[in-house]
Amino acid sequence: MRVGDLPHRLLLGPGPSPVPPRVLDALAQPTIGHLDPAFLALMDEVRDRLRQVFGTRNEMTLAMSGTGSAGMETVMVNLVEPGDRVVVAVNGVFGGRLAEVARRAGGEVTTVETPWGRTVDRDALRAAIAERGPRIVAVVHAETSTGALTPLDGLADEVHARDGLLVVDCVTSLGGLPVDIDAHGVDAAYSGTQKCLSCPPGLSPVTLGPRAVARLERRTHKVPSWYLDLTLLKSYWGQERAYHHTAPINMLYALHEALAIVLEDGLPARYARHRDAHARLAAALGDLGLAFVSQDGYRLPMLNAITAPDGVDEAQVRRRLLEHHAIEIGGGLGAFKGKAWRIGLMGHGATAESVDRVVAALRAEL
Amino acid sequence: MRVGDLPHRLLLGPGPSPVPPRVLDALAQPTIGHLDPAFLALMDEVRDRLRQVFGTRNEMTLAMSGTGSAGMETVMVNLVEPGDRVVVAVNGVFGGRLAEVARRAGGEVTTVETPWGRTVDRDALRAAIAERGPRIVAVVHAETSTGALTPLDGLADEVHARDGLLVVDCVTSLGGLPVDIDAHGVDAAYSGTQKCLSCPPGLSPVTLGPRAVARLERRTHKVPSWYLDLTLLKSYWGQERAYHHTAPINMLYALHEALAIVLEDGLPARYARHRDAHARLAAALGDLGLAFVSQDGYRLPMLNAITAPDGVDEAQVRRRLLEHHAIEIGGGLGAFKGKAWRIGLMGHGATAESVDRVVAALRAEL
Repeated sequence: MRVGDLPHRLLLGPGPSPVPPRVLDALAQPTIGHLDPAFLALMDEVRDRLRQVFGTRNEMTLAMSGTGSAGMETVMVNLVEPGDRVVVAVNGVFGGRLAEVARRAGGEVTTVETPWGRTVDRDALRAAIAERGPRIVAVVHAETSTGALTPLDGLADEVHARDGLLVVDCVTSLGGLPVDIDAHGVDAAYSGTQKCLSCPPGLSPVTLGPRAVARLERRTHKVPSWYLDLTLLKSYWGQERAYHHTAPINMLYALHEALAIVLEDGLPARYARHRDAHARLAAALGDLGLAFVSQDGYRLPMLNAITAPDGVDEAQVRRRLLEHHAIEIGGGLGAFKGKAWRIGLMGHGATAESVDRVVAALRAEL
Repeated sequence: MRVGDLPHRLLLGPGPSPVPPRVLDALAQPTIGHLDPAFLALMDEVRDRLRQVFGTRNEMTLAMSGTGSAGMETVMVNLVEPGDRVVVAVNGVFGGRLAEVARRAGGEVTTVETPWGRTVDRDALRAAIAERGPRIVAVVHAETSTGALTPLDGLADEVHARDGLLVVDCVTSLGGLPVDIDAHGVDAAYSGTQKCLSCPPGLSPVTLGPRAVARLERRTHKVPSWYLDLTLLKSYWGQERAYHHTAPINMLYALHEALAIVLEDGLPARYARHRDAHARLAAALGDLGLAFVSQDGYRLPMLNAITAPDGVDEAQVRRRLLEHHAIEIGGGLGAFKGKAWRIGLMGHGATAESVDRVVAALRAEL
C-alpha cells in the first residue's frame, strides 16, 4: 500500500475532522530541531494562539505531546494525589473515562450519573459537591459520545466554595463553541486538535489556571507520569527551555497553522458557522424522520447523535456511506453502540455543503 | 511567523534527524478516520514493518501515540507493579530517566552506575542481578547523551535465569544498528521515530515478547496510565479494532513511509552506511584534534559525542554552526553540559556529504 493511494473521505464523524490544505502544507514543512530558536519562537505563538481560543490568560497553556486522552490524563495525574476526593459528572463515555483516569491516579472518585444524551444533572452534581467537599470536580463540556452540552455557568463558584478545582473536558467544544475558560472560572481544561480545530490528531492543548498551578506546586507526591509531568514540562515551554522530551515538531507546525485559521475566521463567526450548519442538519434530519438522541436545548452543534431507525443495520449504513459516497460518520459508543449515528460538523467540516452531502447520502441509503 | 518561512537546517544533532521528502509527502496526505478500513490496513503494514526492523515476531508490536519517552513510560508502567525490584544500568541521562520512570511506576529501583561515556559495566550489572533477583532489568542500548553502546549479547540469559524481564531502550539504535530483539532474547523494547528512522518525532515503536505479555496479563494492579495501557491498546491494534484513543493518523502515514525506505535500503546496507559515516567523521575529527568522550570500541556510529576543547565556548560554536552554516549539532546533557558536542549521523543524515559539511563548518568556526 502507498499512503498516496489512500482514499479521500469527507470526515463527518466524531473526529478527525477535515483538515484544510494549508494545515497539511504546514505539517509537511522540513523538520527543524525542538530546541532551535526558530522553533521555540513558533511554540510561543502556538501558546499565545491557544490562550486566545481557550479564552484565558493562563501562563501554563501548552500542547501536550499526545492525543486528547493524553490531555485528560495530564490534568488528572498532575492535579490528583492519592486519596483525593474527586467528583466526576458522567453522562457518556468520556465522563466515564475521566472517572477511570482519576481512579488510576489514586483519586477517591464519586460519579454523578445522568442518563446518556442528557445534560449533566446540576442539582445532583451540586448535592455531591456539598456532600463530598471534593478537591476536584470534573465535567465534560461537550460529550462526544452523545452530543449533549453541559453549560459551565455558575459551576466554578459552587466548586470553589468547597475549595475544589473545576476541570473541564473541552475536547470537542474548543474552537466550535465558546469555552471561555477565565470567564467561567475553570481551573484546568484540555482539548484535542482533531475536532473543531481541524488539525490532524496528535496533540492535546491543555491550560491550568493559578489555583491549579498552586495545587500542583504544593503536591506531596511526585506526579506518577514522568512523560506528562507539568512540573517538568513547564521548563521546556517556559523561559528556561530545558529539554524534557522531543516535541512532535511537525504536528506543532500544523497546530500553529490551524490556530491561525481559527483566529482569521474569528471566534464569533466560527461559532456561528457551527450553529448554522447544525440548524441546517437538524431541519434536514427532521424531514428524513430521524430523531436526536440528545436532549432538546442542550444539543451540540458540532456533534449530532441520532437514533438509527428500528430494523436498520446502522453499521451497514455507515459502510455504504463510506464506500458509495466517501463520507465518514460515526457509530454509537458504549450504551449507544449499534443504536446511533454520530454526525460531526467540526471545524472545516461545519458547512452547508457538508450538511447537504451527508443528507443526500443518507437519503440515498435509507 | 509563517511555518513556510522557518529556516531549513541540516539536522546533525541527537535528533530529530533529516526527514526525506517522501516522508514529508506522506505526512501531508489527507487525513482519514482512525477506524477507516483503509487506515486499519495501513496500521497492519506499519506493525509488520516494525517487526522487521526490530527483528522480532512479537505479536504485540505497535507505535505508541507519543515520543520516545512515552515508549519508555509505556514499557515501565505496563511491566512494573508496586514493590517490584527493578535493576537499571545507568551510564548517561537516559538510564537515569529509566530509573526515575520505574520509581514513579512503583518499582523498588537499584541502579548500577557506570561512568558516563563508558559501556555499562557488565560485571557490576551481573552482580546486581544475582543480589537482587529483579523482576525487571533495563539497559540503554545506545546512550544518546554520551554516544556509548552497550552490547546485548548474553544479557537476557542472565536476566531470565532469575526469572526477570529484559527491557532495552532502542531509541537511538533502531534502524542504525542491529537490535535483533528476538535473537537477543529481549522481552520489551521501545524506540522513537526521529532518530535512525528519519521520521518526524511523535510516535514511539514498542514491542513486547511473550514473557512480557504473560507478565502483563498476570498483573494484580491496573496499569496506572490509562493512555499507555497496553491491555486496552492491544484491542485497537489487534483483531477487535476497538476504539481506545484517536491515533495520530498523519504521523502513522509518515512512519509507514519511513519504514518503507528503511526496508528498501535493506537493514545491512543501512547499518553499513551508518558505520561508514561514523568512520569518516572519526578520521576527520582526529585531524581537527577533537577527542571522543565515549569509550573506544563502544562508540555509537549514529551519535558522536566529543569533548569541546578547553577555552572554547561550546554553545557559541553551536550557535555559529546554526547561523552561519544552517547545521544543527547538539550540546552536552547532564554531566556533559557545556563540555561536549553531540554530532548525530542518523538515518537520512548518515552520509559522507553530511560528514563533510559538518567538518568543514567546525573547521571554519574553531
